[in-house]
Amino acid sequence: MTHLPEKRDDPVSRVRRYLEPGPVVLVSSAWRGETNIMTLGWHTVLEFTPSLVGLMIHGGAHSHAMIRDSGECVINLPTTTLTDAVVGIGNCSGREVDKFARFGLTAEPAALVAAPLIGECHASFECRLHDDALVSRYNFFVFEVVKAHVAPVPDLPETLHYTGDGVFVVSGRAIDRSALFRPDML
Amino acid sequence: MTHLPEKRDDPVSRVRRYLEPGPVVLVSSAWRGETNIMTLGWHTVLEFTPSLVGLMIHGGAHSHAMIRDSGECVINLPTTTLTDAVVGIGNCSGREVDKFARFGLTAEPAALVAAPLIGECHASFECRLHDDALVSRYNFFVFEVVKAHVAPVPDLPETLHYTGDGVFVVSGRAIDRSALFRPDML
Repeated sequence: MTHLPEKRDDPVSRVRRYLEPGPVVLVSSAWRGETNIMTLGWHTVLEFTPSLVGLMIHGGAHSHAMIRDSGECVINLPTTTLTDAVVGIGNCSGREVDKFARFGLTAEPAALVAAPLIGECHASFECRLHDDALVSRYNFFVFEVVKAHVAPVPDLPETLHYTGDGVFVVSGRAIDRSALFRPDML
Repeated sequence: MTHLPEKRDDPVSRVRRYLEPGPVVLVSSAWRGETNIMTLGWHTVLEFTPSLVGLMIHGGAHSHAMIRDSGECVINLPTTTLTDAVVGIGNCSGREVDKFARFGLTAEPAALVAAPLIGECHASFECRLHDDALVSRYNFFVFEVVKAHVAPVPDLPETLHYTGDGVFVVSGRAIDRSALFRPDML
């Protein structure tokens, strides 16, 4: 059984701290009594306030229809302790598999959306669909993060960053250059 | 003088290898005889073929108008040898500064766009504006990568990933899980 990190509320405007570095995320969804999880690396922050993020969720994914129809999802941030689950989730379909059961993950209730949090992840961001203008053309969903749950430690979790070909790079050492920033840029 | 890595043509469908891990990039532009560079961390891959990427380029940036008006840019991938240039470029404006001169960077001619390549970067991706449907609402530009220049070594360059607050995390060790992937997922 993997450790379930204790999480606290975090301001939704600080989501960039976790998503801007570009980690692979696990996107959970719920629709008509069913839950699902997908592995996703194609996302970007779009705005601080409201806290907007963009996700490319390919049309063939079982999650695509669940998220489109429910207008909700949770973006969960896995660390390297979950590497094999991240790979496994990305290599099977929710059409055939209950991914929470298969990968031994804990579905925890969210506060504002029906999609479950993944208890084993370092952070979970509850999202509501904000704009679907680019869904039909690019499968690109704009979500508003409406609640953020973040483990206070470690300060910089070891995240997975996908390069294709089955290879991830792991987040490494930190470089602090805050002394070189203009105050209004921090 | 920083080293100028030797670069080769790379298939544009492989851009995900460099951008999906979420590095900070330097976006170069040209318009009416002027060039500029901006530091950017809000981007995502959107499609393999055509090779599409999405960039959030904030409206206050001098580069925003140059890129919107020219319909072109180059996405350059800096490594940790360029950390101070990355920070410096993000903390001044092209309205007041010639950033190539100020930061000692080499503007090299691109093949298909007017915007220059940054010679010191590990890779440069020439881009043409593909869709501006979300520019007015979110400053979100969809570009097609039309040519890719990539240094063949190192295989995994040490890239910078921004967390906010003046702090970057650096890409670290690689994890190869290709043996766990379905062949059609590789």
